[in-house]
Amino acid sequence: MERICPPIVIVNFKTYKEATGKNALKLAKIAEKVTKQTGVSICIAPQYTDLTTIARSVDIPVFAQHVDPIDFGAHTGQILPEAVKAAGAVGTLINHSERPLPLKSIEVVVDRVKSLGIVSVICSDTPQMATSVAYLKPDMVSVEPPDLIGTGISVSKARPEEVLKTISLVRGVDAAAIILCGAGITTGEDAKAALKLGVNGVLVASGVVKARKQETVLLDIAKAMT
Amino acid sequence: MERICPPIVIVNFKTYKEATGKNALKLAKIAEKVTKQTGVSICIAPQYTDLTTIARSVDIPVFAQHVDPIDFGAHTGQILPEAVKAAGAVGTLINHSERPLPLKSIEVVVDRVKSLGIVSVICSDTPQMATSVAYLKPDMVSVEPPDLIGTGISVSKARPEEVLKTISLVRGVDAAAIILCGAGITTGEDAKAALKLGVNGVLVASGVVKARKQETVLLDIAKAMT
Amino acid sequence: MERICPPIVIVNFKTYKEATGKNALKLAKIAEKVTKQTGVSICIAPQYTDLTTIARSVDIPVFAQHVDPIDFGAHTGQILPEAVKAAGAVGTLINHSERPLPLKSIEVVVDRVKSLGIVSVICSDTPQMATSVAYLKPDMVSVEPPDLIGTGISVSKARPEEVLKTISLVRGVDAAAIILCGAGITTGEDAKAALKLGVNGVLVASGVVKARKQETVLLDIAKAMT
Amino acid sequence: MERICPPIVIVNFKTYKEATGKNALKLAKIAEKVTKQTGVSICIAPQYTDLTTIARSVDIPVFAQHVDPIDFGAHTGQILPEAVKAAGAVGTLINHSERPLPLKSIEVVVDRVKSLGIVSVICSDTPQMATSVAYLKPDMVSVEPPDLIGTGISVSKARPEEVLKTISLVRGVDAAAIILCGAGITTGEDAKAALKLGVNGVLVASGVVKARKQETVLLDIAKAMT
Repeated sequence: MERICPPIVIVNFKTYKEATGKNALKLAKIAEKVTKQTGVSICIAPQYTDLTTIARSVDIPVFAQHVDPIDFGAHTGQILPEAVKAAGAVGTLINHSERPLPLKSIEVVVDRVKSLGIVSVICSDTPQMATSVAYLKPDMVSVEPPDLIGTGISVSKARPEEVLKTISLVRGVDAAAIILCGAGITTGEDAKAALKLGVNGVLVASGVVKARKQETVLLDIAKAMT
Repeated sequence: MERICPPIVIVNFKTYKEATGKNALKLAKIAEKVTKQTGVSICIAPQYTDLTTIARSVDIPVFAQHVDPIDFGAHTGQILPEAVKAAGAVGTLINHSERPLPLKSIEVVVDRVKSLGIVSVICSDTPQMATSVAYLKPDMVSVEPPDLIGTGISVSKARPEEVLKTISLVRGVDAAAIILCGAGITTGEDAKAALKLGVNGVLVASGVVKARKQETVLLDIAKAMT
Repeated sequence: MERICPPIVIVNFKTYKEATGKNALKLAKIAEKVTKQTGVSICIAPQYTDLTTIARSVDIPVFAQHVDPIDFGAHTGQILPEAVKAAGAVGTLINHSERPLPLKSIEVVVDRVKSLGIVSVICSDTPQMATSVAYLKPDMVSVEPPDLIGTGISVSKARPEEVLKTISLVRGVDAAAIILCGAGITTGEDAKAALKLGVNGVLVASGVVKARKQETVLLDIAKAMT
Repeated sequence: MERICPPIVIVNFKTYKEATGKNALKLAKIAEKVTKQTGVSICIAPQYTDLTTIARSVDIPVFAQHVDPIDFGAHTGQILPEAVKAAGAVGTLINHSERPLPLKSIEVVVDRVKSLGIVSVICSDTPQMATSVAYLKPDMVSVEPPDLIGTGISVSKARPEEVLKTISLVRGVDAAAIILCGAGITTGEDAKAALKLGVNGVLVASGVVKARKQETVLLDIAKAMT
């Protein structure tokens, strides 16, 4: 497994226009540049169709946004863990609020990606849910209150108590857990506030992807984390 | 929209090991070679992660296996029609038995891919279902009885009446409909029997993908259709 | 199969507080009273848990809101067609916009409930979708544009062209089809407008269930349809 | 919340013919009789449509098989926690292997039913999953390996190590947790073996429901637990 050292930023490209096809490659290059400038581990999670091109073009960790709990076989239209690995992904988000999984599938997926050496980041909506999934021993746990996603109101500044509770509960399960938080993070100040609360990194999406100046915003966030 | 002329073969790569990553590219090259040898339109439907590489490497129609009923936006982990187009796909399967969609989503997807100039192939399990989706005016309709998928017992030889009924019902809705059939097709004889019943082409998967000699089998099927 | 003669009103109780438990029984009694007063066939679709009590207490057709595409067996938590029949339901909604089904399941469900003598009402969101499901030969087809559901803006007055298009298309498939429309119907005027367009009845929900005076509103609607 | 004291037996009626409608009531009466004879808490989980009649007819705890993560409102066809309570259910299964829920829904459902005073039994497939849901603080946790469900090969005798691991892990999260196990339990010997391993009760389904002599089998199981 690739070693990804905190502080960590994961940029979730979702299916935004500003992060599809050529735009995705452009944003990936920006993330690589900011990584070099700041030393902060910026991981990027583009769409499946862009994984191969991006993984070949940049030297930072590339993640899938989701994988299905399947093996090789007759699974038309589904996302095979081995396929995202072959495409160059070294990690994957799991159970994002916009792609929730049955608990039984989360368990299967974590086991499958572990066995393939793919970094697992299980997303959760609440501190309690984060604790629940921490027990499955993923490489990272992330908490993102869905009501703040895409709002520009950062969880780290608006609801620090949720982040603190997540840290306390998750560390109770796994003292060495790598914990990220997300939702509404758009500035360096938001990211710095998150680290101060005790997390090891942040998840960002629209705040960077839809910014008029993607590089400026991402650099601001990364710098604040050094 | 790319013009795809009958007789048509669509090779569904599913998530088979023999059609993932490098194996997918190898099989795509075989399909291109057989197309050139026979003049039969062989379309290939690899996994999302292999679309870009394959679309750049071969000169035959490349399809997605599925797309989600979404627009650009916050849809982590989902399949954006614009993304598969950007990756080079010129068509897509819709509602495959292994990736069924709510009827309302089928309707949305057909409209979305039409507006993008992507060829739509709606899959169905029964003659009645084929008729039902024919009404949504896709570019092609396919019928594949799920109980025969992967069995090597071809629908065209084992249950010709289902194929005939599909043709009669679908042509009642749309006299010019392009109709494919699939499930269990593994030989040229199966494919020839299908064309004789009146369909415009066949869908194949394991019969070709998992064959010890993929090229031999695909060539046998394509030759029988000329 | 119970004979239900147009004009028809189906009252969908959904999971509204005003139509749960004792409130459901009260509303059922109102529907029965209005049926007697007007001669209009008022069918009611309460929650599963209220089916037995209501079916025993009133002498009007009681419907389920949904059934699953299953047989007797190991299906914890699912809705067995035989169970709703045993509870006294004589019909069921299928594929309501709030409980959409894969197309393949719609087909299975229609066949299953037909074989049990349960009246099938397939719901659809658009004229095209209505036509598509008409091919499955349900007892009734309903069209309800989801964006008008619960708004109080009736489809029959705000978008008569959608209703007309549904009628024309569905009757093209099945000249004798019983067609209902719904969404936003809250007054007798709305219902009368619907009948005038040519449908055989209406689907109502919040307009009646959440009305301060349920009986007054339902009576207004039923009277306008005689 | 009703007090249910170990040893506990939960009989899941699923959608078996032998436990639908009149058969469901008959089986409920048997469970009540065996409860009186043995003093073992037998809880029964019939289908939604049978809840009202059964809850009125017997004096033992009646459970739902599932509830949806919803509030009062426009949720056609879904299972409202308040509705199963109004029907007389005092508890509910959650996340059964045959009705799995996204993790986020499990969390919502547990909170909702707690606030209504409904006993929550979260089902899980593996020891690890049991531990994961134990963090959500349900009233009971159950483990049932899906591959043994319906086989007649009991988890307590065939895979005692899975039961022991579940107990050890779950008690690590909550020392006072009430733990059940299930899958394949068809005899008193199976049930006794389960209690000996340290669980507080068992979940049974086909072993009792589909037995030629339901009462004999249930009595055998209950007696062995006293």
